Amino acid sequence: MEETVFSLAEEVKTLVEEKNFSKLRATLREYNPADIAEAFCEVGEAFFPVAYRLLPKELAAEVFVDMEPTFQKVLIGAFSDYELKLILDELYLDDTVDLIEEMPANVVSRILRNSSPAERKTINELLKYPDDCAGSIMTTEYVNLKQDMTVEDALSYIRRVAIDRETIYTCYVTSPGRKLMGIVSAKALMISPLYTKVEDIMEQNVISVSTHTDKEEVGNMFGKYGFLALPVVDTENRMVGIITVDDAIDVIKEEAEEDFTVMAAMTPSETPYLRTSTFSIWKSRIPWLILLTLSATFTGMIISTFEASLSACVALTAFIPMLMGTGGNSGSQSSVTVIRGLSMGEIRFSDILRVIWKEVRVSLLCAVTLAAVTYLKIYLIDYLLLHSLEPGEMLTVPIVVCLTMAVTVICAKLIGCILPILAKKLGFDPAVMAAPFITTIVDALSLVVYFAIAVSIIPGLS
Amino acid sequence: MEETVFSLAEEVKTLVEEKNFSKLRATLREYNPADIAEAFCEVGEAFFPVAYRLLPKELAAEVFVDMEPTFQKVLIGAFSDYELKLILDELYLDDTVDLIEEMPANVVSRILRNSSPAERKTINELLKYPDDCAGSIMTTEYVNLKQDMTVEDALSYIRRVAIDRETIYTCYVTSPGRKLMGIVSAKALMISPLYTKVEDIMEQNVISVSTHTDKEEVGNMFGKYGFLALPVVDTENRMVGIITVDDAIDVIKEEAEEDFTVMAAMTPSETPYLRTSTFSIWKSRIPWLILLTLSATFTGMIISTFEASLSACVALTAFIPMLMGTGGNSGSQSSVTVIRGLSMGEIRFSDILRVIWKEVRVSLLCAVTLAAVTYLKIYLIDYLLLHSLEPGEMLTVPIVVCLTMAVTVICAKLIGCILPILAKKLGFDPAVMAAPFITTIVDALSLVVYFAIAVSIIPGLS
Repeated sequence: MEETVFSLAEEVKTLVEEKNFSKLRATLREYNPADIAEAFCEVGEAFFPVAYRLLPKELAAEVFVDMEPTFQKVLIGAFSDYELKLILDELYLDDTVDLIEEMPANVVSRILRNSSPAERKTINELLKYPDDCAGSIMTTEYVNLKQDMTVEDALSYIRRVAIDRETIYTCYVTSPGRKLMGIVSAKALMISPLYTKVEDIMEQNVISVSTHTDKEEVGNMFGKYGFLALPVVDTENRMVGIITVDDAIDVIKEEAEEDFTVMAAMTPSETPYLRTSTFSIWKSRIPWLILLTLSATFTGMIISTFEASLSACVALTAFIPMLMGTGGNSGSQSSVTVIRGLSMGEIRFSDILRVIWKEVRVSLLCAVTLAAVTYLKIYLIDYLLLHSLEPGEMLTVPIVVCLTMAVTVICAKLIGCILPILAKKLGFDPAVMAAPFITTIVDALSLVVYFAIAVSIIPGLS
Repeated sequence: MEETVFSLAEEVKTLVEEKNFSKLRATLREYNPADIAEAFCEVGEAFFPVAYRLLPKELAAEVFVDMEPTFQKVLIGAFSDYELKLILDELYLDDTVDLIEEMPANVVSRILRNSSPAERKTINELLKYPDDCAGSIMTTEYVNLKQDMTVEDALSYIRRVAIDRETIYTCYVTSPGRKLMGIVSAKALMISPLYTKVEDIMEQNVISVSTHTDKEEVGNMFGKYGFLALPVVDTENRMVGIITVDDAIDVIKEEAEEDFTVMAAMTPSETPYLRTSTFSIWKSRIPWLILLTLSATFTGMIISTFEASLSACVALTAFIPMLMGTGGNSGSQSSVTVIRGLSMGEIRFSDILRVIWKEVRVSLLCAVTLAAVTYLKIYLIDYLLLHSLEPGEMLTVPIVVCLTMAVTVICAKLIGCILPILAKKLGFDPAVMAAPFITTIVDALSLVVYFAIAVSIIPGLS
């Protein structure tokens, strides 16, 4: 946790305990809403509702938005209907929608009861969009200009509506039928002569997304184009809302975190780790561990099948962890590269052959290098230094191990690059196919290859 | 690769081949610079320099910034000094500095020769900042206002300088001694009466970073506070530059990609996968694979040491992959959680005891669950269904396996949470300590635990 937040949390606690509310009010005003929200989450339920009431109205709304859902629920529970209405008036509609999605039914109905009929209508429309699409993160509060306005008209219109708009820095020019005709930046308005027509300074090659565009793609577009906001249109190019850069940053971060979590075989959660309960962490981790442990039954079965071979040449056992480990690492190198390429929009399904051809060449190079290194390592360390191999075994075992190594590395890299692309094509999350699952598949495969090669090369094995 | 880029690349190729330059010029104007840059990188050296020359000056500069370094080098090689100067005039200084960092010495000296003495001075100053700190991504081109200006003065000043400033939406108010006094948003300027004094509408509780603040922390601050720009100050609170949200998004994305790459045991690269040469990919992967393969020597040695035990009770071998796999997965769950927490600034060194205490509880829960599941699995599948265990072995082997499982899971989770925090404290990249290394350590550990428990429980082993 950051120093600022930590010291603010301590101060809030002390001042609430001392009931020194005037000092607390003055202190809070010096901080940024995000820091206050984090500090409130830190001090806990006994302190923050009191402190929250000391915030000026506008700051209160911003702090509220930045708090974690559990704590928002506590606050709403403590609010009178009047207080709730004040906060809701200050919130942008996309934040109200986020809030509604996190709250239990009784809180939701209180929120809707305290919204105006027009707001309720928009909220209900926004709620309809699936959680992973552009519609779910957009807001309907943008600046809407007309083509025949002059810059002067536009500026005075902006002055009137600015307070309610999530951004005024990108303005949207629409036709009478709400079709998106172009965009004008506040910069263009500020530097153009007042009598200029909006249509003369608007940018007409507008990049927009549809309400059903994947959120992840929206995040990538912000990263690529450097926009401050992106218009959302329906199938007939009618303007329905905008997505602002701050929400896009949240998406970029969330999508990356989700990939990290899923690749490490956990169920994603939105609560920060230190404030997640032990039981919740256990719940997000244990199903995957059980699944992966049970799937290791296959590797166990393979080893049991070849028990006789292993008894006849015990030296083979010592190389199992190395072969499985190298296979797993080779596979996850490829899978992580491809999974991230898919997430970032750099790799599409149509690139599958290019990817395979690249991985074939890389894996051949890696296979040859690793086989050579392994042979040297066995000769120098296992044979000369540690004497863990008999001279007789040196004729066959290193060949079996190095061959297996080469075949495993090639197979692992190919499986690692193909599975995520197929998963995405079939509508599954490619990240689920990453490290843990590919490792399990590669583990089983490397053992089968190992024993098959061993039986065919080492005399007397079966 | 995206559809837009793909079809644009095809069109550029065709039109250059047909020498239909007027159509090509018209076509290019309809696209966003980022798309044009990507399409140019796609069509290759034979086509893009011709097409590039058709771009209008301002668009040309934007396309140039978005191209990959290899291709920027090709272009600069094809430029006359005059053309180079035109482009450099259009670039923001932070982009020029990025360019200089990527180019070979002879290109750098051409760039510096074609910059003005004042630009050269600033470039040299910006080049001094280490690659991972705020100074390296800031620009010095911001809007600088004075406290006693009126809104009218400020707006007319902005109109004059807007073209050269990377953002005009956040303006910085400084004292005569260049000290940062406050910030004013373009929104505040646009909605305030013209005679208002800047000092009356400026925000005084300004969050700023120092030139040496870690880039990663800067990215996190944008994510947390939702800024469009962040001021960079020196130790005496004198304004030295700003960081804009587009650069912050790049940082957020790069830092996440770096963590992904390093955790999957690869050396990070900035070139997109599909355009990286086979040899470069091999180079970024093979050192890690060799290192990890060689470090598996330890697990091999441990198994060799207990060869006699394994011969006496061959059934034990079959459980090795499962135990090592579960250990590895448990460890990487904890390490990835902690590594990302560290990257996002949610976990600090001072939280180490909280983290350990949390992981102790989670790992105990996981250990008990997994041991129980494993016992059931051995009894139902291995004993009743597959008959791979003798009735005599059922008395001891499952106990050895389940005990090892429990101990391994607990150790793996503790190692997984402690190592990254210690690594960060010692100044290493915590991600390097992730999956692959922790897996290697946990592999060795789980084997030692396994054999130690086996020897003490199963009669006749030694």
